[in-house]
Amino acid sequence: MKTDLDQLMQDAGVQALLVMGSAQHNPPMVYLTGGGHLTYADLIRKTGHPGILFHADMERDEAGKCGLETQSYSHYPYAQLLQEAEGNVLKAMVLRYKHMFEDVGLTSGKVLLYGKVDAGRVYALICGLQAIMPHIEFEGFQQEDVLLTAMATKDSSEIDRIKKMGKLTTRVVGNVADFLSERPVRNGMLLGLEGDPLTIGEVKNRINLWLAEVGAENPEGTIFAIGKDAGVPHSSGSANDILRLGEPIVFDIFPCEALGGYYFDMTRTWCLGYAPDDVQLLYEQVKTVYYAMVSELKLDEPFGKYQKRTCELFESMGHPTILTKTDTQVGYTHSLGHGVGLNIHERPFSGLSSTAKDSLKAGSVFTIEPGLYYPDRGMGMRLENTHFAGADGLFEVLADYPLDLVIPVQG
Amino acid sequence: MKTDLDQLMQDAGVQALLVMGSAQHNPPMVYLTGGGHLTYADLIRKTGHPGILFHADMERDEAGKCGLETQSYSHYPYAQLLQEAEGNVLKAMVLRYKHMFEDVGLTSGKVLLYGKVDAGRVYALICGLQAIMPHIEFEGFQQEDVLLTAMATKDSSEIDRIKKMGKLTTRVVGNVADFLSERPVRNGMLLGLEGDPLTIGEVKNRINLWLAEVGAENPEGTIFAIGKDAGVPHSSGSANDILRLGEPIVFDIFPCEALGGYYFDMTRTWCLGYAPDDVQLLYEQVKTVYYAMVSELKLDEPFGKYQKRTCELFESMGHPTILTKTDTQVGYTHSLGHGVGLNIHERPFSGLSSTAKDSLKAGSVFTIEPGLYYPDRGMGMRLENTHFAGADGLFEVLADYPLDLVIPVQG
Repeated sequence: MKTDLDQLMQDAGVQALLVMGSAQHNPPMVYLTGGGHLTYADLIRKTGHPGILFHADMERDEAGKCGLETQSYSHYPYAQLLQEAEGNVLKAMVLRYKHMFEDVGLTSGKVLLYGKVDAGRVYALICGLQAIMPHIEFEGFQQEDVLLTAMATKDSSEIDRIKKMGKLTTRVVGNVADFLSERPVRNGMLLGLEGDPLTIGEVKNRINLWLAEVGAENPEGTIFAIGKDAGVPHSSGSANDILRLGEPIVFDIFPCEALGGYYFDMTRTWCLGYAPDDVQLLYEQVKTVYYAMVSELKLDEPFGKYQKRTCELFESMGHPTILTKTDTQVGYTHSLGHGVGLNIHERPFSGLSSTAKDSLKAGSVFTIEPGLYYPDRGMGMRLENTHFAGADGLFEVLADYPLDLVIPVQG
Repeated sequence: MKTDLDQLMQDAGVQALLVMGSAQHNPPMVYLTGGGHLTYADLIRKTGHPGILFHADMERDEAGKCGLETQSYSHYPYAQLLQEAEGNVLKAMVLRYKHMFEDVGLTSGKVLLYGKVDAGRVYALICGLQAIMPHIEFEGFQQEDVLLTAMATKDSSEIDRIKKMGKLTTRVVGNVADFLSERPVRNGMLLGLEGDPLTIGEVKNRINLWLAEVGAENPEGTIFAIGKDAGVPHSSGSANDILRLGEPIVFDIFPCEALGGYYFDMTRTWCLGYAPDDVQLLYEQVKTVYYAMVSELKLDEPFGKYQKRTCELFESMGHPTILTKTDTQVGYTHSLGHGVGLNIHERPFSGLSSTAKDSLKAGSVFTIEPGLYYPDRGMGMRLENTHFAGADGLFEVLADYPLDLVIPVQG
């Protein structure tokens, strides 16, 4: 939780975090500033202090809204920096950062790097800065890091926001189900508003419209994939595909609050009109595993334990899984879930090799999403809800919606 | 232009580009792959080759859509990498990249880094990779780089897409103008649908809805700022502000194609019902400078030249500008324009110190956006269009919309 951050920084011997980039669609910056219309900013957050936000002059009002101490970049006149850097633009920028660090009283210790930024820019900048500030140890990370650890458990205001996104998301999913149910049917296909066969592209346009109506954004798009596409977990679906009765549709929706806030994530698998027996069987198996996992969840267990259990259950049903065939592309081929927050995928992760850092803690918000995939048989299946672990050891679904497979259609 | 890329790479002595991250809302990756539902991918693009796209197994269909050669990460089994790395997760990842580079036959030379990614992740990764591949020179950049240079001039298919976004954007701007014109007026304020004063928050919700209707995304939000807020160039406006007649509104809208494609950028300044004399005067001055700059544009001139001209014109009208008072927060306080493409801000830039690299070339798409700002007098003003430089030396506005200041209101 955010309140753990200083302790985590202290335990890790970290003097400060440097968070770079926009205050929109940039989780670490949104987390620590609350977001805002900041095209580019830098936050230096020392242990025990809320941080200083450096910003462009003409974004001073937006910067001010975050309630942190602020400092305009114009405090470091560019012409002067460029002169000091003998005309070298990169060096001028490096010098500005050096002055910023000196101004917050930081000239030694460990500084961790955050923010969604241009790879080339940050690599050049930090290498340059490291060279002229040898007593600071700039550090990136692959897995161990204090901020993502703090972000992995949510406080009640964050839970409220994710719940609200869940409510809006399920409303949109309901709109989609109603819309499909109300379409006329011809030759085993749904028809669109013009009387032509309804396409996935049209359905996705409506989803975006309904999401906009409830004030949500959909920066990563929606998976709405039928038949063979449904059999490939992250195939997003082909815009020109038409909606045939009896073919499984994987509908995975993961919108966020406007301007890059909290996400919600859910998946349903639908069959229009009826479900063939083999699809129905697959569905029952996925649903069984979903409910088994939900019933087995316990606080402080590593998330990966349930991934192993899921593999074992699916294997006992005769499906290949990545537990015994690591590169399988049929059967159960992905992870059981992931944390959800300002990132659509964040801690805890449920990889088989996940450690104690990825255990289900009080405040964890995470998906449970078993699935089965047989692209060559034209089918795939996934059921997913976003869950929350309470301090009392009780787990709850953050927004409920029926798991039903069959969507009734006209006629 | 994209067709210049190999020549640019060769001239710069670059062996390859490494592009990291998602294929959505990640300009370099969208540029070179065409986009798609790829959560995380790596593109290694050697000079003279279209590149190899490395991707997660379950995103193989999405990866395949880009038409490039592809390779799944599962080709480098993680368990094996982790063993080789003696359990060190970062080192395992570094080893995977080493194998990827070896597999494309790249073990020496200059490699440039691209992609919108987590700062800490890329810094740790590239530092690790640099240490075990000493003959490759990994390079970031601050300003000089081949990909952004290629992206700075657009081919006809890119122009068509930006034009189309322009058409959709002006349609939405028209919707907003019509909506405001149709609102009832009471006590000098517009009323919303419920009969309460209309707020900026409500207007912004409608803008997002109309943008969704035309299939656009609005990841950076909209500036719709009235009165004092209009006097701060990047103040996005306060959601609870109400719309009073006769107060200038800066309306700056910059949506992009769904999933992070091409942007369009335009600004109008509006006064509801009437414009007070001082606002009208400011408007005439900004409009005069806008038309002066548009009429003076010439191919192959540095963009910064027009910034200097703009400052001189505004100063001749009695306004302070950053030309002679670099830190002024009143008068003309920002740049004249910027390139527009897959980034909302890209080359060419019009900074006073901009070099030949930022000249207006055939294929440049860029904004012209003079403005004047007097927050303490409760007003600000900006007029902006997106322009295109043709090979024939003719400049055109990519989507036209009246520059009118006054929006007529009811009664």
